[in-house]
Amino acid sequence: MPHIKVIVTLKPTLLDAQGRVVQNALHSLGYEDVTQVRIGKYMELTVSDDAASDPAALDTTVREMCDKLLVNPVIENYTFEVME
Amino acid sequence: MPHIKVIVTLKPTLLDAQGRVVQNALHSLGYEDVTQVRIGKYMELTVSDDAASDPAALDTTVREMCDKLLVNPVIENYTFEVME
Repeated sequence: MPHIKVIVTLKPTLLDAQGRVVQNALHSLGYEDVTQVRIGKYMELTVSDDAASDPAALDTTVREMCDKLLVNPVIENYTFEVME
Repeated sequence: MPHIKVIVTLKPTLLDAQGRVVQNALHSLGYEDVTQVRIGKYMELTVSDDAASDPAALDTTVREMCDKLLVNPVIENYTFEVME
C-alpha cells in the first residue's frame, strides 16, 4: 500500500530548546563538531490503494491533513513525499 | 555547512500508540483512507566543514552518536543521510 512520509520542522527563526539540549549532550560526549541540532517530527501515513489512485487528489488531501491536524502552521513547516 | 538528516522510527513490530491516536483523529475528521500512522523523530544535525571533510569518518561518527544518545536501539531503528 502506498505511504506518505511527512517531515515537520520548527520554523528556522524559532529557538529549538530541545535541539539545544541534545546539542549540549553531544558536546559533553565529545562530539564538539556538531554546531546545531534541530528536532522535528516524522510521520508515516499508509493510505488505501483507492486513495492513491489519483496522485493530485492525494496531494491535496495530505496538505489538508497537515494543515488541519498534523502541523501547527504558526510555528512549523512541513514537507512530504508519496512513496509507492 | 554540511548537515545530516536523521530519521528515527519505532520498530515495525511495536505498537505505536501515538500513531494510533493520530489515525483515530484523522478518521474522525473524515480521512477514512488512512490505514496506518507511525510517528517517529526527525533530527537535523549541522556539523563543521572540518568534520565533513572525511565522509567515511563522518558516517562512523553519526552512527556512534545515534547508538549512544539519539536512538534507543531496543525499540527504534534509524536512517540518516548526509547533505552538502
